[in-house]
Amino acid sequence: MTTPTTDAMMRLAVEQANGVKGTTYPNPPVGAVIVDRDGQVAGVGATQPPSGPHAEVMALRRAGQRALGGTAVVTLEPCNHHGRTPPCVDALVAAGVSRVVYAVSDPNEVAAGGAARLADAGIEVVPGVLTDEVTRGPLREWLHKQRTGLPHVTWKFATSVDGRSAAADGSSQWITSPAARADVHRRRAVIDAIVVGTGTVFADDPALTARLADGSLAEHQPLRVVVGYREVSSEAKVLNDDSRTMVIRTHDPHEVIKFLADRTDVLLEGGPTLAGAFLRAGAVDRIIAYVAPILLGGPITAVDDVGVLSIAHAQRWRFDGVEPIGPDVLLSLVPG
Amino acid sequence: MTTPTTDAMMRLAVEQANGVKGTTYPNPPVGAVIVDRDGQVAGVGATQPPSGPHAEVMALRRAGQRALGGTAVVTLEPCNHHGRTPPCVDALVAAGVSRVVYAVSDPNEVAAGGAARLADAGIEVVPGVLTDEVTRGPLREWLHKQRTGLPHVTWKFATSVDGRSAAADGSSQWITSPAARADVHRRRAVIDAIVVGTGTVFADDPALTARLADGSLAEHQPLRVVVGYREVSSEAKVLNDDSRTMVIRTHDPHEVIKFLADRTDVLLEGGPTLAGAFLRAGAVDRIIAYVAPILLGGPITAVDDVGVLSIAHAQRWRFDGVEPIGPDVLLSLVPG
Repeated sequence: MTTPTTDAMMRLAVEQANGVKGTTYPNPPVGAVIVDRDGQVAGVGATQPPSGPHAEVMALRRAGQRALGGTAVVTLEPCNHHGRTPPCVDALVAAGVSRVVYAVSDPNEVAAGGAARLADAGIEVVPGVLTDEVTRGPLREWLHKQRTGLPHVTWKFATSVDGRSAAADGSSQWITSPAARADVHRRRAVIDAIVVGTGTVFADDPALTARLADGSLAEHQPLRVVVGYREVSSEAKVLNDDSRTMVIRTHDPHEVIKFLADRTDVLLEGGPTLAGAFLRAGAVDRIIAYVAPILLGGPITAVDDVGVLSIAHAQRWRFDGVEPIGPDVLLSLVPG
Repeated sequence: MTTPTTDAMMRLAVEQANGVKGTTYPNPPVGAVIVDRDGQVAGVGATQPPSGPHAEVMALRRAGQRALGGTAVVTLEPCNHHGRTPPCVDALVAAGVSRVVYAVSDPNEVAAGGAARLADAGIEVVPGVLTDEVTRGPLREWLHKQRTGLPHVTWKFATSVDGRSAAADGSSQWITSPAARADVHRRRAVIDAIVVGTGTVFADDPALTARLADGSLAEHQPLRVVVGYREVSSEAKVLNDDSRTMVIRTHDPHEVIKFLADRTDVLLEGGPTLAGAFLRAGAVDRIIAYVAPILLGGPITAVDDVGVLSIAHAQRWRFDGVEPIGPDVLLSLVPG
């Protein structure tokens, strides 16, 4: 038997965490792996919905006696407070693990102190393993919320390689491939809210639901948020019964975000006007662009005015992901 | 000693070929590797400038006696005709190689027949190794020229992630990073001609030279071609002594291409108007886009009208390369 490395174990924990994104609010989506004395995986787990067990407890249950003398690998520092469940550190001490490895320290003052508590109990504590991958990955939105008190906003757009979001006649279905659209639906199924302007509702009449490959509704549906002053027809798909919908009568992105302050992960799918308003307001925390290998030309771009007059004042971001999705390319950007 | 695979040897030959791109006209840029009986590299070579030796001869010279009983790995079927140099097949037979591996069959009727000639001489011939890599790579432009009789045109543009080629006030220096601009200069140093419109000359006054990292001129400079009816000032950098310049008084891409019919590899660096004209005319064979992680907004896009009214009639291309270049991303597209 070969022994997987600690990094490999943390990647497994990241996978577990990604698998529960969008289902754990207000708790963070955490993944955990219990490795036995021989270095083999004894159990994996992830945060359950609110008032259910945390990741460590799920993994310990699956590991059973094999946790004794083993290692717990967790994406977030184990919590040290009695919330709706007992502290995870107690469970780790009781299970007799000899080592705890984690990626990110808990920024939440109430829950923090887990590492110190474990060390006091004679358990070896190894922080800082794949911190960057977890910070950019499954915990990104939750950490943003902890830091700012506001939800994390991702602006998503689909574009031709020449930067158009529709052809000259306004037609835009479809710029990207079925593979890219399926990826969008997977994202919608793990976020808290999806925001569009009334312009998009009038132009495209989107349902803004998360659907599975067979067309059926995903288990989790995001809150649908329509921003603007124009009256939305009661026939609009965005008002159907597939999910809840909130209409916010404003054009101010900061007001929208305040309305959504109890959410963590918000997807902005607005058209050029609303996207421009969010970008000018500095209210976008991440950009994901699905770029199709087509040329459209014409006047309709994915965003109009981002508040930049001269190249010296360009909005500077940084690519943090570039990957093919079917025939398209997905570019991911974070503030530069 | 481990024995490199035939694929690895062909990749080495491809590297050799790429190293002489732009210097071999009218001959194709070819790479060759001689592998000795023990499977080790005995010599490498690439096509020398016109009337100099071909790749096989260069590699055989370097291999010397070690070619006897060995394998020749070549990107293009060895030639079988007396041009300015004797046929390469004669040199391979004389050197006593026992096997010849190549990627692409020679489409040129005068030079073809090399494989049959080698087989007649009792040499094992293996065609079709990494054909796709060579066809898309070092021989792409030359094969296009053989097939169509016309030069291969690559449209290059730099763009923000929202599809702008300049900020609202027209400023565009610089959208992309020094790393991306150095990559453009490396490309210019291996092409035959670089085409812009008078609009670009008036807006940016570019020198359109190929420069090395230290700012000095590269050994090979492309022909500079300015397209359009407006008078170019004698002070314009594009008319300086660093290279030759051709002014073509037309707006018709097909006329431009006919003027350049004796060239193989042409780079179109035109602005929105000229690029649009080439794209509408179906006169672009490849697109390379340097995408910077910035947002600009505003009215200035990399291309205006590509002749598409509706999404159903989008120009469909295919990504054949996506790679990071410093902080930017280089997207490469070929017809879909």
